[in-house]
Amino acid sequence: MCRWIAYSGSPVLIDHLLYGSEHSLIVQSLHSRLGAEETNGDGFGVGWYGAQPIPAVFHSVEPAWNDRNLRELGRHIESPMVFAHIRASTGSPVQQTNCHPFRHGRWLWMHNGLISGFAEMKRDLMLEVDPALYPGIEGTTDSETLFHLALTYGLEDDPHRAVARAIGLVEAMGERHGIPFPMQGTIATTDGHRLWAFRYSSEGRTRSLFYSTDVATLRAHHPDNPYLHEVSDQTRLVVSEPLGDLAGAWNEVPESTCSMIEDGADEIVPFAPIRPAEVTA
Amino acid sequence: MCRWIAYSGSPVLIDHLLYGSEHSLIVQSLHSRLGAEETNGDGFGVGWYGAQPIPAVFHSVEPAWNDRNLRELGRHIESPMVFAHIRASTGSPVQQTNCHPFRHGRWLWMHNGLISGFAEMKRDLMLEVDPALYPGIEGTTDSETLFHLALTYGLEDDPHRAVARAIGLVEAMGERHGIPFPMQGTIATTDGHRLWAFRYSSEGRTRSLFYSTDVATLRAHHPDNPYLHEVSDQTRLVVSEPLGDLAGAWNEVPESTCSMIEDGADEIVPFAPIRPAEVTA
Amino acid sequence: MCRWIAYSGSPVLIDHLLYGSEHSLIVQSLHSRLGAEETNGDGFGVGWYGAQPIPAVFHSVEPAWNDRNLRELGRHIESPMVFAHIRASTGSPVQQTNCHPFRHGRWLWMHNGLISGFAEMKRDLMLEVDPALYPGIEGTTDSETLFHLALTYGLEDDPHRAVARAIGLVEAMGERHGIPFPMQGTIATTDGHRLWAFRYSSEGRTRSLFYSTDVATLRAHHPDNPYLHEVSDQTRLVVSEPLGDLAGAWNEVPESTCSMIEDGADEIVPFAPIRPAEVTA
Amino acid sequence: MCRWIAYSGSPVLIDHLLYGSEHSLIVQSLHSRLGAEETNGDGFGVGWYGAQPIPAVFHSVEPAWNDRNLRELGRHIESPMVFAHIRASTGSPVQQTNCHPFRHGRWLWMHNGLISGFAEMKRDLMLEVDPALYPGIEGTTDSETLFHLALTYGLEDDPHRAVARAIGLVEAMGERHGIPFPMQGTIATTDGHRLWAFRYSSEGRTRSLFYSTDVATLRAHHPDNPYLHEVSDQTRLVVSEPLGDLAGAWNEVPESTCSMIEDGADEIVPFAPIRPAEVTA
Repeated sequence: MCRWIAYSGSPVLIDHLLYGSEHSLIVQSLHSRLGAEETNGDGFGVGWYGAQPIPAVFHSVEPAWNDRNLRELGRHIESPMVFAHIRASTGSPVQQTNCHPFRHGRWLWMHNGLISGFAEMKRDLMLEVDPALYPGIEGTTDSETLFHLALTYGLEDDPHRAVARAIGLVEAMGERHGIPFPMQGTIATTDGHRLWAFRYSSEGRTRSLFYSTDVATLRAHHPDNPYLHEVSDQTRLVVSEPLGDLAGAWNEVPESTCSMIEDGADEIVPFAPIRPAEVTA
Repeated sequence: MCRWIAYSGSPVLIDHLLYGSEHSLIVQSLHSRLGAEETNGDGFGVGWYGAQPIPAVFHSVEPAWNDRNLRELGRHIESPMVFAHIRASTGSPVQQTNCHPFRHGRWLWMHNGLISGFAEMKRDLMLEVDPALYPGIEGTTDSETLFHLALTYGLEDDPHRAVARAIGLVEAMGERHGIPFPMQGTIATTDGHRLWAFRYSSEGRTRSLFYSTDVATLRAHHPDNPYLHEVSDQTRLVVSEPLGDLAGAWNEVPESTCSMIEDGADEIVPFAPIRPAEVTA
Repeated sequence: MCRWIAYSGSPVLIDHLLYGSEHSLIVQSLHSRLGAEETNGDGFGVGWYGAQPIPAVFHSVEPAWNDRNLRELGRHIESPMVFAHIRASTGSPVQQTNCHPFRHGRWLWMHNGLISGFAEMKRDLMLEVDPALYPGIEGTTDSETLFHLALTYGLEDDPHRAVARAIGLVEAMGERHGIPFPMQGTIATTDGHRLWAFRYSSEGRTRSLFYSTDVATLRAHHPDNPYLHEVSDQTRLVVSEPLGDLAGAWNEVPESTCSMIEDGADEIVPFAPIRPAEVTA
Repeated sequence: MCRWIAYSGSPVLIDHLLYGSEHSLIVQSLHSRLGAEETNGDGFGVGWYGAQPIPAVFHSVEPAWNDRNLRELGRHIESPMVFAHIRASTGSPVQQTNCHPFRHGRWLWMHNGLISGFAEMKRDLMLEVDPALYPGIEGTTDSETLFHLALTYGLEDDPHRAVARAIGLVEAMGERHGIPFPMQGTIATTDGHRLWAFRYSSEGRTRSLFYSTDVATLRAHHPDNPYLHEVSDQTRLVVSEPLGDLAGAWNEVPESTCSMIEDGADEIVPFAPIRPAEVTA
């Protein structure tokens, strides 16, 4: 599996976001406390939004803890919306095209978890991808396939529904292939302005996911914390595991939910897959 | 495009094969004389047969001229059947899973050329791959797709016919997509004992391909050449471009042919694609 | 040898600088017209100044023409002072620590050329490096050694004199080791504000070097060229070979000179090494 | 720090040696039980002896658990003397030239541990290296410097004494620089026939090291173990941590010793550094 972090708020130096906390993502790459795998050393990626609508992505096959270029870039790049992901491969090769976040136009996508039985189901799932989107698939992961299924089902218009249909297809396909719990994972996606996070697994035992308390509330509880006076009211994080131990700062995202964050406000609603049979034109 | 070399004969040190001649493959990686691209620096691969029936493959994304591990391995590994390939990408990413030679069981496959319009046709071509073989596709190249189409059509039983059907499918698909000359290339494949080489393009202007004259004939013409007394009578090479300038040593493989080499003997027969409509059970 | 480009002026998108011209550095990485080596595929590096005094450096062992991260970064990073370098190794390993530009504090350094007989002289040259600077040497190239010699001799205070002493030492050492022409090359160095370029070789036949004509003059000659109206009056380039064919745009840097560029103005003065014996406290 | 394994005996398939046991080196690369660092993902190396006196080395900057080429080579290469090393960097860059085992002529060298204060002492230590050996130093690690000091002091003639002098120099230099415990580590070196292993630290608390019981004894205790009937009487292993849990199979190497293994026989003698002042011509 993997670990990821999604940041939305006042422009943050990537270095600060990735290295600057006690249980930072870089620390997690060597020693994750809550991950399915302790070591997440099979490549990493960072995506961020700058002056242009299309985000940048930086992918590397090196373990994140070693990558000198990441450190250099981190110290010079600031962004109000950052996705970062460290990978522990569940079988597909360690290559840049398999590193998250994946990008399509203005959208970024990252995933922690897996599609069980992906090798058996891959061909059938790929067939469902819109032929116009098919050539955009560059790697071989389950996560990128899921992204393209969601794009096929209208991610850019209605992310909640599109992801529900993508996962619904995976579950229907899993049933056909005799796989009991095909879907597992937490997903983050963004268009650069809004951020959606999903926590869902067929089994109902999904990888951990946390979101940060809104800054105004945290300031009220920790009036003397200097860091909280530096960040904007709009700053929010969604992470695979808490980055620090500040009391009240981290809240578990409930099972089977879709969270949406925009301008610092969050909305968490129940999430359930939509099976192909349930889709009505 | 790319450059490749296929060797069959008495066990040869890979180092000798790759570095030991005036226009060796390593020299060609920097300065090919006959290639569509002069520089072939987008990764490379070597496949060889040892004590076991399954061949080994070594793939690297570095330019071959730089790779220190290749030099080390070359000095210690001998084999009677070696495939080596240097890549000049026609668009797909430089990653180990896109390096030739590709392997399936006992078989190796490498290709110099391209399928024109591959991005548009890829989905349709992938659909034709046997679903049981589909999970074995690890990279994203046209060459690996072609290999799996040939496997689907019985490469292991009748390579000539299987490749003819695979290329026939590419041409039929190209017609449907309005691509005038979809197939271009030279292909080598082997099961470890016999070696097949194909030279064919839809346009009838295929990348160069040469085979070496049989050793007995060469010895008769160059009785004083010490190298020719070292190699076995069975030694034969098929190469994208000649490795040296020895008079009479290199013969152009004719257009639209399939060559088969076994125990030093060669047989060259005409080759034509078999379109899907022509296939009869 | 190598190729390099130094840019000083209005903030430029790195992508525009590296990919946006007919004979851009990326084109030169595959097909240099004036380089000692046609292919410059042994790694590359980019250094640039941002919001902080310490510049960022991005180093990669991949050929520049292949590097997807370089393309991504190039599209998102703007800077008023950029150094870019593509490498053709003269023997030392292809690894990030051997990629230019090298950095020390606020300073960047890059070099095209070589120290002949470096293997024999390296130990003696390293002994001359200030022991306090010695631990900062991370790679194994002649270029990085030369940089640290120049730092030892006061690069940060008087670049012209420091480089003259560094090269003077190399020539004195070369004499002692019986090497006729030990120094060869063009060098660029900067503190983020001013840019120095050196063209010198012991033999008097130095690798090519060009500087761009000042923008005001060029505009007068090409009043209709839209690009020239986009760039600032302060924009200047120093390059191993011209990036395009605009008449009057490129001027050869004379042999044995030191050029200094500051705020768009250039000053070119004669350059001669200072031998150790000539140094007076 | 790192983990290593040295094998001497009947020719063994490298794959069997690296992957074929419960706590194999590859398992240790992700989860070492006894290492100073749990994860050893900063590159790896394998050295082995084949038909030629000069051994082959394969170095990679990828984590060993991911490297597909290592798996391929492992399945095809057999050798009677194999060194394998997985690295957890103590600061120097992750690059092939910093991967163990290091080689000089017929000799291999690998090290688990570090020289404390190496950055401060490096220049002084390098000055002691024989100028004729100096150009052979390709990387930047303390381990390679130590190897070249041992070579300077006659490793090829008397390994025990040469290593004692090298470590003695490190301790003398440490004293001069005010470093209390400069030397830490276990070292293996071989000429292809005999294998020496050292366990020593200035502090007297050295990283773990184990050697395997001789095969005849093990067979007597485990008469039904089929594996023990496959291996030769000469087969011996020296390892950073035991590869399995077979009772009686693994013995801790005592502190401050030098072990020598030849043709299956071992000899363990006390080891103490020889300070420069103690050296007499």
